[in-house]
Amino acid sequence: MKRGVKVSHNVIRRLPRYLRKLDELTEAGVSRISSGELGRQLGLTPSQIRQDFSCFGEFGQQGYGYKVTALRAEIASILGMDRGFKAILIGVGNIGQALVCNFSFNQWGFELMAAFDVKPELVGNEHDGIMVHHIDELPQFLDENHVDVAVLCVPKKHAVAITELLTSHGINAIWNFTNVELTAPESSTIVENIHFSDSLLSLSYFVAQDIDEKAARAARLNK
Amino acid sequence: MKRGVKVSHNVIRRLPRYLRKLDELTEAGVSRISSGELGRQLGLTPSQIRQDFSCFGEFGQQGYGYKVTALRAEIASILGMDRGFKAILIGVGNIGQALVCNFSFNQWGFELMAAFDVKPELVGNEHDGIMVHHIDELPQFLDENHVDVAVLCVPKKHAVAITELLTSHGINAIWNFTNVELTAPESSTIVENIHFSDSLLSLSYFVAQDIDEKAARAARLNK
Repeated sequence: MKRGVKVSHNVIRRLPRYLRKLDELTEAGVSRISSGELGRQLGLTPSQIRQDFSCFGEFGQQGYGYKVTALRAEIASILGMDRGFKAILIGVGNIGQALVCNFSFNQWGFELMAAFDVKPELVGNEHDGIMVHHIDELPQFLDENHVDVAVLCVPKKHAVAITELLTSHGINAIWNFTNVELTAPESSTIVENIHFSDSLLSLSYFVAQDIDEKAARAARLNK
Repeated sequence: MKRGVKVSHNVIRRLPRYLRKLDELTEAGVSRISSGELGRQLGLTPSQIRQDFSCFGEFGQQGYGYKVTALRAEIASILGMDRGFKAILIGVGNIGQALVCNFSFNQWGFELMAAFDVKPELVGNEHDGIMVHHIDELPQFLDENHVDVAVLCVPKKHAVAITELLTSHGINAIWNFTNVELTAPESSTIVENIHFSDSLLSLSYFVAQDIDEKAARAARLNK
C-alpha cells in the first residue's frame, strides 16, 4: 500500500464491497478477473475500478487482469483485517444478541471479547462463547484489557452516557447501532453508524421516485 | 419539490440525517435555525446545506434561517414518508425479530403488515401486533395485498430464491439484511442493503489509519 496517500471516503466505502465480491469469486473457483468483468458484476466502470485500486498501489497486470487471492489479501490488509482488533459489545437486546450470535466478527478480523448489559436475566449468560458481564464491570474491564472498538447497542436514552464512559476509559472507536448522533463533529472519537432508518428512508425515496416516474410515463402515454 | 430534478445519491443519503437532526431540534424546542448553525451541528458547511436544499426548492429565508417544522415536513415528503408504504418482513431470526419488535416502521411512514418464517415455533406468533405467517402463505399474501417493500432477513443461502419469489409476485423494492448481493446491476428491482460487515470494515480502516498516524507522529518525535 502507498503510505500517506489520502484516500477518498467513497473509495473506502467501496473496498468492503470489492472484498465481498472477491470472496464470492474465490468460492466460485475464479482465480483471476479483468477490471471489465469485475466492473460488470459490480455495476461499475472498468476505469473506476482501476482508479480505485491505483490509490493503494498496483495489483493488476495489463491484459492479464487481477489475481483474485492477491487482490483480496491486499484489500483485507488495507481494511485492517490483519490487525487483530478487539471489540466489546454493550447492550444485549435483540440487535445486540443478533450480532453476538449471528455476526462473525472473526471473519472480518475482529475478536469479540465480551458483552455487557444491566438485565439480571442476561448477565452471566454465555452466547457462542461470549460472556455477558454486568455493565458495572465495564470500567474495570476497560482498564485491564486492550479494546479497540465498542459495539454500542444500548437503548437510545443511554447512548450518550455510555459513550462518555467508554471514551473516558480510552475507547476511541464506536460501532453505533443506537440511531443517536454520538459525538460532536469536532470529536476525535471514530464513530461508524448503522442507521436503519436512514437506510429505509433512502429506499423509501427511490420507491417514491419509481412510482412517480411510472405515473408520469403512463400520463404521457394517455395524452 | 421541483419535479424532474435529478438529485445526486450523496444528497439523498444526507436527507435522512437532516430529518433526524430536525426531529432532535423540534424535541429541544428549536423552531428555526440558520444554515450556519445547522452545518456546525452536522459537520457540514453552510453552503453545502444550502446547496442540498436548493435541489428541492426554496425552504430558507435570507437572514431568517429555516423553519424547523416546515423544513422537516418538506424533507419527509421528499423521502416518501407521507406515501403510506406497506412492508412485509421475511425471516424472523434475531435480526428480523429485532426489527419487528424494536424498529418503529410507523415513525418512518411505513406500515409493517406481516412477517413470514418457516420455523414451526415462530409461525402463528404475534410480535407487537405483527403476525408471523408460514412462508408457504407468502405467494397468496402477495397476490391479495399491495406490498411496496419486502424486508429480507433470511439466512444467506435462501436470499436469492426468496428474492426471485418476491419479484415474480410483483415486489420491486427490497430492504436487504442478508449480506448477499441480490440482483444483477441491470435489474429494475430497487435494493437497499444493510451490510453490517461493510460498515465494520470501514470502521476498521479508520481505526487502522488512526493507529498508523499516531505511530508515525510518535516516530517523528523520537527522531
